Amino acid sequence: MKPQTTIHSSLRTVEWKKNTVVMIDQTKLPNKLVFVKYTDYNDVANAIKTLIIRGAPAIGVAGAFGLALAALQSKAETKEKLLADLEKAKKILFETRPTAVNLAWGLEKIMEVAKKGKTVPEIKESIIQTAKKMAEDDIVTNMTMGKHGAKLFDNNDTIMTHCNAGALATVGYGTALGVIRATKESGKKIKVIATETRPVMQGSRLTAFELKHDGIDVSLIPDTAVGYAMAKGLVTKVIVGADRILRTGHVYNKIGTYQVATMAKQHKIPFYVAAPLSTFDLKSNPDDVVIEQRKASEVTGIAGKKTAPDDINVINPAFDMTPPELITGIITEAGVAKSPFEESIKKLFKSKM
Amino acid sequence: MKPQTTIHSSLRTVEWKKNTVVMIDQTKLPNKLVFVKYTDYNDVANAIKTLIIRGAPAIGVAGAFGLALAALQSKAETKEKLLADLEKAKKILFETRPTAVNLAWGLEKIMEVAKKGKTVPEIKESIIQTAKKMAEDDIVTNMTMGKHGAKLFDNNDTIMTHCNAGALATVGYGTALGVIRATKESGKKIKVIATETRPVMQGSRLTAFELKHDGIDVSLIPDTAVGYAMAKGLVTKVIVGADRILRTGHVYNKIGTYQVATMAKQHKIPFYVAAPLSTFDLKSNPDDVVIEQRKASEVTGIAGKKTAPDDINVINPAFDMTPPELITGIITEAGVAKSPFEESIKKLFKSKM
Repeated sequence: MKPQTTIHSSLRTVEWKKNTVVMIDQTKLPNKLVFVKYTDYNDVANAIKTLIIRGAPAIGVAGAFGLALAALQSKAETKEKLLADLEKAKKILFETRPTAVNLAWGLEKIMEVAKKGKTVPEIKESIIQTAKKMAEDDIVTNMTMGKHGAKLFDNNDTIMTHCNAGALATVGYGTALGVIRATKESGKKIKVIATETRPVMQGSRLTAFELKHDGIDVSLIPDTAVGYAMAKGLVTKVIVGADRILRTGHVYNKIGTYQVATMAKQHKIPFYVAAPLSTFDLKSNPDDVVIEQRKASEVTGIAGKKTAPDDINVINPAFDMTPPELITGIITEAGVAKSPFEESIKKLFKSKM
Repeated sequence: MKPQTTIHSSLRTVEWKKNTVVMIDQTKLPNKLVFVKYTDYNDVANAIKTLIIRGAPAIGVAGAFGLALAALQSKAETKEKLLADLEKAKKILFETRPTAVNLAWGLEKIMEVAKKGKTVPEIKESIIQTAKKMAEDDIVTNMTMGKHGAKLFDNNDTIMTHCNAGALATVGYGTALGVIRATKESGKKIKVIATETRPVMQGSRLTAFELKHDGIDVSLIPDTAVGYAMAKGLVTKVIVGADRILRTGHVYNKIGTYQVATMAKQHKIPFYVAAPLSTFDLKSNPDDVVIEQRKASEVTGIAGKKTAPDDINVINPAFDMTPPELITGIITEAGVAKSPFEESIKKLFKSKM
């Protein structure tokens, strides 16, 4: 399977090309599609820190590529000295987004491979190959998810999506938008309605951008027009990504997902979630999950322009929780979980063991 | 009743002071509270056109004040010549917002008064007195509405509101925010949660501003956080204004109202609408009402900053429709209508005849 050629028209968020890390600079979107190239791991660290690259799967792989650059940059002649150089780079890369689970995971995976190697050239080569494989695996997972999901969508569907669960949040292809891409690639004619997704506007800036880039018919709506669009019969299905899914089927995703799901239920519109098995948290209960609050300035202004009075109180949660009774199905690379979710999620995990 | 002294702390959107029209320049909000003064009706016309003043009741009265200035400016020595000068001014004022029903109503009312007068000084005086009375009547209506509404709210309520149905949309005091003001003035302790209200952000710019100005505890949320706030138990009641209400209780209001009402129903939170009887359209059926689409640039950018890709399709409806089954009560100056609405609305109108 060669994802590069299969999905040539889709965006690749981060890539390894001739000993160089190539990324889309997401801070320039949607105004300009700019690719940046790095040969120094410090630049990769800076890119993660300044949100040139974001999205959990994408920064996990970016961290791994950063360590691959550090290996190439190292002048060490012994395994011990190379490992010391890598530890130093790992620390710098990790501190860019210390709460991101995927970043720690990507860095650890590379360090394990490095420790197993014997000679310096062997270690360098295996690090590069592992990092490249992590990127490929992310895309393969998304494409497999897409294949499972595409069966749930019909010709002439208009699919609403919230936030960006697209190529730009992953290495490529995307989760929710991967299902949309796979549906289109299966020959079905579809349209997409993307919500703006205040406050950070990933719907306008990223989803609208990447779907338009791929030639998929997309319309943008303010978050306030979800109910209107459904009441007018403009939406036949909904699909979103997820930041965390519990074993009970409770889905934590970008703020606003819960009300999109409620409106879909009210209008009898199927509501799907697409996420890899790595998104599942099989241990926590809904009461355990703390929803982080983001800074007020995201709500009180946009792009440096103030839109609210000074010192106003703000409630700005990052995520909300959608209960399983609002969800038609959860699409993963192992298949689709449906109600009763606790049972069907367990089955998906067993099938992968 | 002297509303000026009773509500000294509340904002007055438009006012007649010593043969001068004084307005809050709403284009400067929320950054600066600037009052502008006009003695030339052409400047009033320009203020309506450039949205220095907006909100249906407010521009109706602004138009009347514009004609009062035109009367003072006129050098006519006969009734006929004065009426000709007024007709010319009326045309200029009307063309600023030709689809606004209230503006036409305000101008017509003044012209009727002018035609009834006999001498030039008498006409000038009666025009000024009529325009001033229209402004007072708007506030008295809102305060009466507030009195009826305040009974429905309890001590320690946290009230969610959407868009701006406040002093800044009326001459003063407001409709939905008038009820909130009256509840506070009745001695009850309340808090308010204001939605941002994309795309034009009247919640951030106007509601948050005017409640903070009046010392009412207000928190701002992005429109995506309505469901979160309700699920977390942060909201005990909801109140919104209305642009049009049908005899069946179907409410047309700012886009997003329908989903706020749906979320409230899901969480068993009472949902109220506050609007004067002049907002009711007793003739139309839901199928007759055309919802206007606003320009795409409101959604694709903010304050001149682009937030979406070029040439993206946009769906940007001005209003949505909330069906009566989601509404707990409609608060008017004649009392509160409750389900079955067709019957109770009929009663309110009878009580005013």
